[in-house]
Amino acid sequence: MKRDVCILGLGLIGGSLMKDLKAAGHPVFGFNRSPSGVKAAVGDGFSATDSLGEVLVEAEKRKALIVIATPMPAVAGLLDQIAQLAPSCGITDVVSVKKEVYRQVKQRGLEHRYVGGHPMAGTADSGWTAAQEGLFTNAAWVVGFDYAVECAGAPKGPLEKMSATTARIIDKADNPANINPGADNDTPPGATPTDPVPAEWIDLFTDVVAMAHIVGAQVIPATYDLHDSAVARISHLPHLLAESLAIVGDNGGALALSLAAGSFSDGTRVAGSHPSLVRAMCETNHEALLVALDEALSLLTDARANLAANKPSVEELTDAGYRSRIRWEARSQQGDSQRPILRLHPGAPGWVAQLRQAENLGARIEVF
Amino acid sequence: MKRDVCILGLGLIGGSLMKDLKAAGHPVFGFNRSPSGVKAAVGDGFSATDSLGEVLVEAEKRKALIVIATPMPAVAGLLDQIAQLAPSCGITDVVSVKKEVYRQVKQRGLEHRYVGGHPMAGTADSGWTAAQEGLFTNAAWVVGFDYAVECAGAPKGPLEKMSATTARIIDKADNPANINPGADNDTPPGATPTDPVPAEWIDLFTDVVAMAHIVGAQVIPATYDLHDSAVARISHLPHLLAESLAIVGDNGGALALSLAAGSFSDGTRVAGSHPSLVRAMCETNHEALLVALDEALSLLTDARANLAANKPSVEELTDAGYRSRIRWEARSQQGDSQRPILRLHPGAPGWVAQLRQAENLGARIEVF
Repeated sequence: MKRDVCILGLGLIGGSLMKDLKAAGHPVFGFNRSPSGVKAAVGDGFSATDSLGEVLVEAEKRKALIVIATPMPAVAGLLDQIAQLAPSCGITDVVSVKKEVYRQVKQRGLEHRYVGGHPMAGTADSGWTAAQEGLFTNAAWVVGFDYAVECAGAPKGPLEKMSATTARIIDKADNPANINPGADNDTPPGATPTDPVPAEWIDLFTDVVAMAHIVGAQVIPATYDLHDSAVARISHLPHLLAESLAIVGDNGGALALSLAAGSFSDGTRVAGSHPSLVRAMCETNHEALLVALDEALSLLTDARANLAANKPSVEELTDAGYRSRIRWEARSQQGDSQRPILRLHPGAPGWVAQLRQAENLGARIEVF
Repeated sequence: MKRDVCILGLGLIGGSLMKDLKAAGHPVFGFNRSPSGVKAAVGDGFSATDSLGEVLVEAEKRKALIVIATPMPAVAGLLDQIAQLAPSCGITDVVSVKKEVYRQVKQRGLEHRYVGGHPMAGTADSGWTAAQEGLFTNAAWVVGFDYAVECAGAPKGPLEKMSATTARIIDKADNPANINPGADNDTPPGATPTDPVPAEWIDLFTDVVAMAHIVGAQVIPATYDLHDSAVARISHLPHLLAESLAIVGDNGGALALSLAAGSFSDGTRVAGSHPSLVRAMCETNHEALLVALDEALSLLTDARANLAANKPSVEELTDAGYRSRIRWEARSQQGDSQRPILRLHPGAPGWVAQLRQAENLGARIEVF
């Protein structure tokens, strides 16, 4: 990537990003609200300050890529300061909800220089000291492309109009023979020969993807709406279930807590996340989370009825749950991602449709 | 322990028990229904057969302790065969529900030679090949004492009548100065000087505790009813939540599954357990599980209402869930159990009340 990186917020995610970038030899500097975090980072040899004004002036001077790495509630204030003090910098973020961030970006007319991001990595710990090199290795890093869709006027929903030439999916990374970078450079039917997405934004998108790749992540493109629906299911709902399980176990008193082992420990792990972080993501994503929660409630209510029947049974739930878990395990062999790969050239004809297709497949992209 | 051990069922739990006992130099032999499991065990140098008749005749000859290590549905048939072919052997089990096993034991009039058990250990895998040495190290191993309560006519519920001399709880294992084995040998006020529990049962209880200690487990005494309530909360409910989460994630399609990371992986791990095993424990324990499930449903329904409010909030749930998880973490420092210890002498005056007290505290016992 071409730009230096300026990280706002040096907690678990921002701090790990800083450590990885520096380890890769990439210029990086940052801001943290709490002086103690700054002190720790500086003590570890990093460039950090607790002055937001200073860091943004520096970012503007260096035309750096600004990464917002704070919880949701701090985002609006940071965007205001960025608009004022770093008016020509590209912006990305690592916040776990995307629609609300994009709404705030648009409110300030910053969408032409914003590409939202969300690395799917973390631990129950937080702060600079919890940050670690390698946190993002093989992790999914969502990169949004709503602005390109809006500019291109590409179809928002189904994929029927996508040309066959955009569908060069290679199932496994280890088959380079299938990769054919030149093949998409013709103009597919239905695509405009001149890309309506501004070159500045395409360049920013390319740099955000490059940054995620530098730290070892796999980039999954997704529009903000579909991202929020997906993470409600696989990241926010798990928190609500974990909190509930922790409470019900605790209600059982000393004997229950003394007997609790692996299934309780795993099932409640994320209840150890600080409540303010859990609230920030769940409450901001309440719309999509309600959909996921209602599905869970419906499954559990059915299971309750079947358990209370004359011949108690949880067959339906356990059979379906087992199949679902096995399907996911097959997709995500530990340590060796099974995600399909799609190679594309940002700005080339049909590239936005290719992003749509990758989103639909949960595929990762590589850019050339 | 004095007796040889005969294990019926050489799956994950039975097989791990066999491997640990043999590694400790204790005589052990076993039965498995599937010849392939037997072949694997014999190939690994263990004494195993697929003939139930043979193994029970051998058990009777050696006055072995019989360990039932099959899922619930096989228990009744095994008890019938034991009653017929091994009429003088002591019996224990490792089944994850206890009231139903005890009901079946009583139906056959075997309660004077039965001490129920339940090691809180396992993985999502099953079968002899999944069995491993060390599986029970520091795990809780529940040992039941309903028969002693029934014989002693001890109070079933509250502990008010317990004498002060039975309350020698030592908070930490590493403070041997507090351990005073002789102090309980006087007759506490209110206890009968002659123990009404038959010596044969006391001897069996002592051997079951000794077996759990040989394999490195920590023995938590509990009556079957309270055991079942506790495991509904911390073992069976986690399965229902995991199954539901796996399905809701799967409903999100390829994008959701591609983004799923740690919180989804941990939250669904036990959904990878074979459905027949999950059904056996959840359905058998349906009464207690309904209580736990209703508590979870109530918490989640409240959270839903708060999420759907004008100002969406999950404060109540996350605050309580976080506190509960932290409380449990404090109790169960990984690798170093914080369970209180109670030392007792089976058959000594007041020992059944001591078991009651340990149950109430989730304490582990050591016998002398």
